[in-house]
Amino acid sequence: MSTISIIGLGGMARAIATRAVEGGHTVEVIGRDAAKAKDLAAELGGGATAGAFGATPAGDIVVSAVPYAGAAQVLAQFGDALAGKIVIDISNTFNADATGVVTPAGTSGAQEIAKTVPASTHVVKAFNTVFGHVLAQGGRLDVLIAGDDADAKARVSAFIESLGLRPLDAGDLAAARWLEAVGPLLMGLANHGAGFNISLGVTIKD
Amino acid sequence: MSTISIIGLGGMARAIATRAVEGGHTVEVIGRDAAKAKDLAAELGGGATAGAFGATPAGDIVVSAVPYAGAAQVLAQFGDALAGKIVIDISNTFNADATGVVTPAGTSGAQEIAKTVPASTHVVKAFNTVFGHVLAQGGRLDVLIAGDDADAKARVSAFIESLGLRPLDAGDLAAARWLEAVGPLLMGLANHGAGFNISLGVTIKD
Repeated sequence: MSTISIIGLGGMARAIATRAVEGGHTVEVIGRDAAKAKDLAAELGGGATAGAFGATPAGDIVVSAVPYAGAAQVLAQFGDALAGKIVIDISNTFNADATGVVTPAGTSGAQEIAKTVPASTHVVKAFNTVFGHVLAQGGRLDVLIAGDDADAKARVSAFIESLGLRPLDAGDLAAARWLEAVGPLLMGLANHGAGFNISLGVTIKD
Repeated sequence: MSTISIIGLGGMARAIATRAVEGGHTVEVIGRDAAKAKDLAAELGGGATAGAFGATPAGDIVVSAVPYAGAAQVLAQFGDALAGKIVIDISNTFNADATGVVTPAGTSGAQEIAKTVPASTHVVKAFNTVFGHVLAQGGRLDVLIAGDDADAKARVSAFIESLGLRPLDAGDLAAARWLEAVGPLLMGLANHGAGFNISLGVTIKD
């Protein structure tokens, strides 16, 4: 097991951190509010620590678990501290009523975020297709991923497996746009009869 | 049960027609090649007939099961013969290598198709999130739908149920863009380890 750094202190950060601790990882939580980060680390247990916002994260895998609207700005504040790291972008890009996405046509939030990190940082899209409260309930859910670097994707896949989840590779980072389209799709289903206690999965037959 | 008209003689047309016959519907298959349509009707059995291309379809529900590239042109040839009908658009809009969609940004194939039919025709997006060969294998798969008219969606949902499938409403016709994004998403998963014998489904917890 390894050290996982998580930037963000919200519901998704907490859900992923909890599973990571359960999976035997050493978790570092990082937030602008150092006191809140310390509280979350204490609550998580398992040797979890609070890292300093903007400093070099302890983990080789850094989960960016902040809303899309602020993600690029937050990661820019880390700057070269993210060099050589794998950054997992979990953000959803849909607008306030979840009827559209805020990203320019023909791109994705993950690709926009990739522009803001050092060239040696590998961005992998993952977890945005899972509701945080559903992730927190436990169970082996499917986690769709997309990224350009095969080794980074393999390491993120191993991390996802270690959380008791099933990684499914959807392609290169440009495919993140299809993962991000799952956000408004799930919101649409939730708002039209399915409710919010739902998860998307893939059945693979032999 | 009712009469269902299906425009198209390809794999998806055949898979839906087969399930419709099994579901007790009277099926009318319609294609430009009248001889092929007649052959398919005979093969389907269950009283299936071949309809005349461009004439008024026998069914109140008309499945447009032709590739997106030709769908608008085909439906335009039916013109007023589709007035008052429900047209189910099953098309996928991705490009040749399934890395992008051919529709303009901010719209969907279903909305583009809706522009080409009479104002009294209700277009409902459905079935594009299911591979035809998987549909042909049987089993209760999830079928995501989107449309603007509640009554039309209710009737399409009942039709989908009658095929032994589960309809899931994702919202109005503008939400068809998220359903159409599932096309390249499934292709990406298929091409990156999952293989093509896959289906997307939604787990709904209580």
